[in-house]
Amino acid sequence: MKKTLTFLLLGLGAMNISNAQTAPRHEPDSNAEVNVSAVSPALARYINESVENDLWKRPQLSPRDRSIVTLATLIARNQTIELRPELYRALDNGVKPSEISEIITHLAFYAGLGNAKAAIAVTAKVFAERHIGADQLPPASPRLLPIDEKTEARRSEIVARDVRPVSPALEHFMNDPLFHDVWRRPGLSPRDRSLVTVSSLIANGQVNEAAFHLNRAMDNGLTAEQIGEVIAQIAFYAGWPNAYGAVAVAAKVIDSRPK
Amino acid sequence: MKKTLTFLLLGLGAMNISNAQTAPRHEPDSNAEVNVSAVSPALARYINESVENDLWKRPQLSPRDRSIVTLATLIARNQTIELRPELYRALDNGVKPSEISEIITHLAFYAGLGNAKAAIAVTAKVFAERHIGADQLPPASPRLLPIDEKTEARRSEIVARDVRPVSPALEHFMNDPLFHDVWRRPGLSPRDRSLVTVSSLIANGQVNEAAFHLNRAMDNGLTAEQIGEVIAQIAFYAGWPNAYGAVAVAAKVIDSRPK
Amino acid sequence: MKKTLTFLLLGLGAMNISNAQTAPRHEPDSNAEVNVSAVSPALARYINESVENDLWKRPQLSPRDRSIVTLATLIARNQTIELRPELYRALDNGVKPSEISEIITHLAFYAGLGNAKAAIAVTAKVFAERHIGADQLPPASPRLLPIDEKTEARRSEIVARDVRPVSPALEHFMNDPLFHDVWRRPGLSPRDRSLVTVSSLIANGQVNEAAFHLNRAMDNGLTAEQIGEVIAQIAFYAGWPNAYGAVAVAAKVIDSRPK
Repeated sequence: MKKTLTFLLLGLGAMNISNAQTAPRHEPDSNAEVNVSAVSPALARYINESVENDLWKRPQLSPRDRSIVTLATLIARNQTIELRPELYRALDNGVKPSEISEIITHLAFYAGLGNAKAAIAVTAKVFAERHIGADQLPPASPRLLPIDEKTEARRSEIVARDVRPVSPALEHFMNDPLFHDVWRRPGLSPRDRSLVTVSSLIANGQVNEAAFHLNRAMDNGLTAEQIGEVIAQIAFYAGWPNAYGAVAVAAKVIDSRPK
Repeated sequence: MKKTLTFLLLGLGAMNISNAQTAPRHEPDSNAEVNVSAVSPALARYINESVENDLWKRPQLSPRDRSIVTLATLIARNQTIELRPELYRALDNGVKPSEISEIITHLAFYAGLGNAKAAIAVTAKVFAERHIGADQLPPASPRLLPIDEKTEARRSEIVARDVRPVSPALEHFMNDPLFHDVWRRPGLSPRDRSLVTVSSLIANGQVNEAAFHLNRAMDNGLTAEQIGEVIAQIAFYAGWPNAYGAVAVAAKVIDSRPK
Repeated sequence: MKKTLTFLLLGLGAMNISNAQTAPRHEPDSNAEVNVSAVSPALARYINESVENDLWKRPQLSPRDRSIVTLATLIARNQTIELRPELYRALDNGVKPSEISEIITHLAFYAGLGNAKAAIAVTAKVFAERHIGADQLPPASPRLLPIDEKTEARRSEIVARDVRPVSPALEHFMNDPLFHDVWRRPGLSPRDRSLVTVSSLIANGQVNEAAFHLNRAMDNGLTAEQIGEVIAQIAFYAGWPNAYGAVAVAAKVIDSRPK
């Protein structure tokens, strides 16, 4: 009964409710609004009940973190339709424009230039609509965060051993710009950068690469409980199989760490 | 000689031939018609000879089943350009509008919300063009199919053991709504729901998750011969590598079952 | 200092610089130009410094080969936004229109019909803008290259053993048209066809299928050094994880071959 009522009240356009107050309605982008109920009243109900009123409200992960995970998932999977309302939600949840810029830059490396450019096309419009100007973007060449010599020595050693014999070019670009520049940019904390990386890897089913970055994420402050929530968040935005596939890797990483 | 003649007659726009009678031409969607011959006369020939006049006519899998596999593949891979003509074909092949709605709802879980919303945007247009109204959509909260207690006990036990320690949230949503609600919706038979799930997993190369669902699909009535045809259908719509990768998993599942 | 200056000079629209002279600006495609600096001045800098002025200029792989790898990567990942400028660059780098046509035809099989059709929609526009007519396209049914009987016997034997018991349909289409027709088309050299195949597999993380085709590519003339460069090229266009994942497979293949 309660479910039916909620559906009657919220079913139409349930997905955009949280953006309804903030997204200007003039000059509508044809991709921006998908009337879910016109094809699936059931999905509108699930979005309302399970996604909006359950997943996003679980206290084990903050709305800001959920937005970071969701943006990373959508950009990593080139989901430009869903990206627009989630950019609005992210700004409302406290993700700064400079952080969104850093997330896209970071994912240019982890999901490819094409994904980053597609995300930029959508983001540029949202920034303009929210009156976010160039003064809120991170500089191209900021003073970089100090490098963690010990972690970096271990990483570059593995890459020298495994990557150099096959692809000196990959090693070259992996050292610089990826680890000596991108990862050290101050506009996104190492913990959030790890959150973006892990989300991208899980969202694309890249489990072989996930173990290294789950460890790094926990070194950078992500907790085991938060990882469990990240996986559930990704399940809805990238589908169950890739989330499910991440569980075994996460279990192994969490178990292997000193308690 | 026969091939050359067929090409001369059918090469231009071969792909849309089966939809030519049904798809209204007014208000053309820029995505709807891709003139394959303008860039690749060879591909137009392969589409005509191998896809339209061979694959789709093989009797080992019905046109309706092939349409379900194809829709699931395209939605799972976010192929909105190809989706439009295949929705027309699916309706012509006897897939009911309510079943298309259920397929999209189901794939919101197996391929992610973004894929489902992108599919809904295309489907809403096709439904409008075919005068399919809200009365033909499945209700948001129908009376659910009875649960198979034994199968469900085994599944939920595995999830409690493997998923709960890492992601209680994933277990929570996997039980409800995924298995206690979505899978029990009566608008799509369990056998067709399995066909959609298996197609989505194979199309996205998610072989680790495929074994469980291939077994479930055979429990739900899909035959080994049909699985072989499903794999070939997916080869054309999702590319050879993911289809080829599914062969080993399918062989193992088929061999493991009591004869 | 030098970096800052370069950015000031080249940061805006850095990505399209190499195409600026050739791409006509009239009738702008909304997808064609993404102002990277409007959202990420940092990414504009990385594109300028690492992609345009480093990666693309490395002498270990020719600009023509890099363009083939890049086109294959973008088509295999359905990256239509990035595809347009890279088609212009490919033509400038000496990839012939007939070869672009063959690349797309080939990828219809390795990445799916939907990806090929999406690529054709973009390519048809670029061909029209560059005044490339039907006379420059390869024929639908050319005289085919001779078959390498020994290699083909080995391949078809493996497929008969592994694929036939599960999917006779997949074996059927894999023999004809895939290996007896597509692979023997003369419009793209076997070496370039291998380059396209390997790029598509790596770009989509299909490592299980990559070993066979890396071996075939080396049989067809691709060197170990070139494979290393291919992997780095793909890292930027498909993201680091899939490139990194290819390193172990490539190492194994290279080691296994007679020196």
